[in-house]
Amino acid sequence: MEIIYNVSLMQRKADEWRSAGKKIGFVPTMGFFHEGHLELMRVARKNADVVVASIFVNPIQFGPSEDYNRYPKDIERDKKKAQDVGVDILFIPSVEEMYPDGFQTKVHVEKLTKHLCGLFRPGHFDGVTTVVTKLFNIVKPHVAVFGEKDYQQLLVIKRMVKDLNMDVHIIGVPTVREADGLAMSSRNTYLSPEERKSALCLKKSIDMARDMVKKGESNASIIKKKVEELITSYPFTKIQYISICDPDTLEEISQINDKALIAMAVFVGNARLIDNAILEKVEKGDRI
Amino acid sequence: MEIIYNVSLMQRKADEWRSAGKKIGFVPTMGFFHEGHLELMRVARKNADVVVASIFVNPIQFGPSEDYNRYPKDIERDKKKAQDVGVDILFIPSVEEMYPDGFQTKVHVEKLTKHLCGLFRPGHFDGVTTVVTKLFNIVKPHVAVFGEKDYQQLLVIKRMVKDLNMDVHIIGVPTVREADGLAMSSRNTYLSPEERKSALCLKKSIDMARDMVKKGESNASIIKKKVEELITSYPFTKIQYISICDPDTLEEISQINDKALIAMAVFVGNARLIDNAILEKVEKGDRI
Repeated sequence: MEIIYNVSLMQRKADEWRSAGKKIGFVPTMGFFHEGHLELMRVARKNADVVVASIFVNPIQFGPSEDYNRYPKDIERDKKKAQDVGVDILFIPSVEEMYPDGFQTKVHVEKLTKHLCGLFRPGHFDGVTTVVTKLFNIVKPHVAVFGEKDYQQLLVIKRMVKDLNMDVHIIGVPTVREADGLAMSSRNTYLSPEERKSALCLKKSIDMARDMVKKGESNASIIKKKVEELITSYPFTKIQYISICDPDTLEEISQINDKALIAMAVFVGNARLIDNAILEKVEKGDRI
Repeated sequence: MEIIYNVSLMQRKADEWRSAGKKIGFVPTMGFFHEGHLELMRVARKNADVVVASIFVNPIQFGPSEDYNRYPKDIERDKKKAQDVGVDILFIPSVEEMYPDGFQTKVHVEKLTKHLCGLFRPGHFDGVTTVVTKLFNIVKPHVAVFGEKDYQQLLVIKRMVKDLNMDVHIIGVPTVREADGLAMSSRNTYLSPEERKSALCLKKSIDMARDMVKKGESNASIIKKKVEELITSYPFTKIQYISICDPDTLEEISQINDKALIAMAVFVGNARLIDNAILEKVEKGDRI
């Protein structure tokens, strides 16, 4: 596995691969790899000839009161893990390399960013779409892989790719979870042992919501109230939002007809955790 | 010369060329070709193996009171002219192809767009940078050619390319003028014979400003006042702005030290005309 720190070198490498007819798979990350990241890399491996993963904690997607400065890092461990799953290049640019003096351009997706996390993290998605545009122009992938845990991010990126005619195929990968159901996240490292127990409330409440819908409940307010009750029954929790919305537009819905997305952000101690799932009256597994 | 109307077809053609090691030159236009456009195509020809020109009157770069609906068109004449200068592909997408339902993404350059035309055409440069990003992702050029007549546009695009790591080399081409000095523009077609005479005031006043600077005048207010007087002495004219500014940041300056940009937008009848030049105490030609 090669490590590249420089934008131009990465672009020349991508050109070489493309000239040689290689299909490039790309996994953009903020590092501190867990099984979720590795799964994205494995999917990239299966869908491309060569795989680039990037590690870049992107300052412009963090708000001033957020965890940019304490975001967990362990580059040496990341290198080993990436190598083990067959990544060809680990691209690790510096902040100065990505945002030199005079930087003043942003990519903005308008409607999809006005919901869920976008309401509570102003500028966050502009930071995401801007850095992903830059990374796509640097790595020149045919295929890029993102996790469904960040459902809104995946939707926003798909929209941007379509709207700006980026010739990149976006693959979403189901959330990877710990044995007890907690969605894997680099931010789980912020949790104390007691908070770690409470963190299960996200998955538990989502399972409850899915169950309610399967049993015939279609009133979103009733479901959200039950979810809220369950989450607040756990210590150290503070709900930022619980949304039941259209899975394509992210617009809030009151009545679940065919299917809906449930998405939530919950502070557990200092850690802001998110999770989501599709709510369906008849789930895919039931149809078989 | 091939004509392509479809985004995916254009992308596949660009891929083919790139796989074959061809260097792609690109000239994005709004059509109604004049000698200025053809010069851009000739420069693209010299700097690439294959040349794509696009014709797309981009609705999102026009304000509601602007001339989108009456912008001049003559596709058949354009085809002949493009073929004559050796364009390989003329790319002519429809508005529906470029902006399908649900479109909601824009590219925004922050500081450079807050001056000159950006002050009077809100949203204009977002429209330009968004469509140029799309066209770059569709045509996949190595080199793209723009006219210096749209000085601010050229600067904004160079900034965007740098900031978003687009791997495209941008070439600026000096303004092509009519025999009497009027900068060539598709919008000159709006001028009546009498207005056409008045339209010369832009170039005349720029020449006067250059002369003043060469003769030692460095006070921008004094120069602007003289320029204003000269322009308003012509019938049918209405000044939108006259700016003397830093050629890199476009920030207004009061004192011309080394060099400055003079840029102006003047309505002549219904036609909004722009022109610009670099003001230098010692001009390049003088040094020889």
